[in-house]
Amino acid sequence: MQARHVKITGTGRYLPGGGIAAEEIDRRLGTEPGWVMRKTSVANRHFAGDETASEMGARAAREALDAAGLAFADIDCLVCASGTAEQPIPCTAALIQRAMGEENSGVPCFDINSTCLSFVTALDVMSYLIEAGRYRRILIVSSEIASKGLDWTNKESAALFGDGAAAAVAERTPEGEASRILQARMTTHSAGAAHSEIRGGGSGLPASLYREETAADYLFSMDGEAIFRQASRLLPAFMDGLLGPAGLSMSDFKLVVPHQGSVMAMKLLQRKLGISEEQMLYIAPHYGNVIAASIPLGLDMAAREGRVKRGDRVLLLGTSAGLSLGGVALVY
Amino acid sequence: MQARHVKITGTGRYLPGGGIAAEEIDRRLGTEPGWVMRKTSVANRHFAGDETASEMGARAAREALDAAGLAFADIDCLVCASGTAEQPIPCTAALIQRAMGEENSGVPCFDINSTCLSFVTALDVMSYLIEAGRYRRILIVSSEIASKGLDWTNKESAALFGDGAAAAVAERTPEGEASRILQARMTTHSAGAAHSEIRGGGSGLPASLYREETAADYLFSMDGEAIFRQASRLLPAFMDGLLGPAGLSMSDFKLVVPHQGSVMAMKLLQRKLGISEEQMLYIAPHYGNVIAASIPLGLDMAAREGRVKRGDRVLLLGTSAGLSLGGVALVY
Repeated sequence: MQARHVKITGTGRYLPGGGIAAEEIDRRLGTEPGWVMRKTSVANRHFAGDETASEMGARAAREALDAAGLAFADIDCLVCASGTAEQPIPCTAALIQRAMGEENSGVPCFDINSTCLSFVTALDVMSYLIEAGRYRRILIVSSEIASKGLDWTNKESAALFGDGAAAAVAERTPEGEASRILQARMTTHSAGAAHSEIRGGGSGLPASLYREETAADYLFSMDGEAIFRQASRLLPAFMDGLLGPAGLSMSDFKLVVPHQGSVMAMKLLQRKLGISEEQMLYIAPHYGNVIAASIPLGLDMAAREGRVKRGDRVLLLGTSAGLSLGGVALVY
Repeated sequence: MQARHVKITGTGRYLPGGGIAAEEIDRRLGTEPGWVMRKTSVANRHFAGDETASEMGARAAREALDAAGLAFADIDCLVCASGTAEQPIPCTAALIQRAMGEENSGVPCFDINSTCLSFVTALDVMSYLIEAGRYRRILIVSSEIASKGLDWTNKESAALFGDGAAAAVAERTPEGEASRILQARMTTHSAGAAHSEIRGGGSGLPASLYREETAADYLFSMDGEAIFRQASRLLPAFMDGLLGPAGLSMSDFKLVVPHQGSVMAMKLLQRKLGISEEQMLYIAPHYGNVIAASIPLGLDMAAREGRVKRGDRVLLLGTSAGLSLGGVALVY
């Protein structure tokens, strides 16, 4: 058991624009009407216009603070937990601090990145600093603009993604309350590192070498089947290692908030891991794959819709580029 | 006091290529012989050729494991703490795991990024997970290829940087030993976020919009004077907050391992903070500014040269893009 007395006291979200239906994506891709919906089950997603990831993150963060009944001055640390960065330098967390108008606050800002699992990793890691009393309250923000990195010639993957931001305030559980992190686990299997990547834009293949002919190198590429094969092979043992030490089994959870690479893959994994229809939260049909924002967005959705109440056990679970598996079992 | 029973049991480094003297940089910049040395005091730096950041990081990590008398199988978590990423997706830590030939190890990999302070932040944050017993031994790797992002039309900044990797193994201090983290602190002041940045290559200004005319947007730009002004205004109060709660003063430290944006700025800060010549470790003259690798490289240098011994108090201290200030006071 690695219980930590940490409570998510508020969540928030921000979705840019008015929402884009599957049919509109069919038009962009030149696919027959219904193809996107049939292939992805993503009925709707949002794409950012001129908004930056830090502006989106700032709006989600404000909503999370409001939900927690807190002001920015109550926050001791701001962690950006996104799979995409707004700029190579500096870290996105500093840009979110600035976008919140808190540029003179001094609140420490840094990024934690494990692509789609960034929120799960940040919550897991930072909960130890809350437990130890280093920081009382931490704002974790995932803000993703996937749309700028999509390869529209790769229909299967372009059809899956959306933009969005979600945030959560994590703080020490007040005396006498049940909220806590029960157990967390992460594993990385870089044999699958090339299954999901953007090769260009970092030091390996700098942006300054960008040419029209090699444009695809600077866009997202994914081998969905390879990810699914690797993940489904690894997940059963991973789940044993995550739940076993805490004496938990899947039926102990009121709700599973998964990262959703694709709805089809998740349906298969739902069956494989014995997650019931009532337990499973599907985010992707409404927002697409919003990378690391998926899981906090799901948590925010579940909290606002009353699908999760204080004292309920919740499992955050996902896979990410790397390839990594990660999960946090908590009492909400 | 926030003491954590954490010991750095091994450090390692990797510097690519044979080293490039200041005079060679004068030739590249078209400046008169002696200009680079006079302006920067950087007598030597290394530039990576075909090597990737993950390959460099893997070599430094192997050396750190050797120094600690450990094998990769002894490691429970691999954190990449770099200011530059090899690829936008996945995280560089996963690529380092793969470059080490440990792609089936399952060891969790993620990145912590606060630009030049990434190593300091990662050591600070992850030490809580060691203290709590979540991970016994953590490999922290900073691997930087600055050279691919330099703007050679901006002579002052291009002359400062070098490429390099450094790594450290952090683990729980064995019973009866003095090694520990005494105190750590970080603050971020994003009023200075634009003082040091690479604007292009993330979601804000995607690599796919790269044009020759706007090439500078995708390269590093820095207002050294503005950073220095902001940092020197903030540092005295920051130091009080870092050292005060632990009852420490500057004279308690055998060694100060600073991040080194520029040698000139550091000399002024050395005087301002009352750091003696004997205490101060200068890394930049030998390697330039190797971003987040500077501080672990300095620590490795000091350990190998006998400038720091077990039981000595060491202060890791720096500024980074953001603008952030960060420090870790430890017993080596």
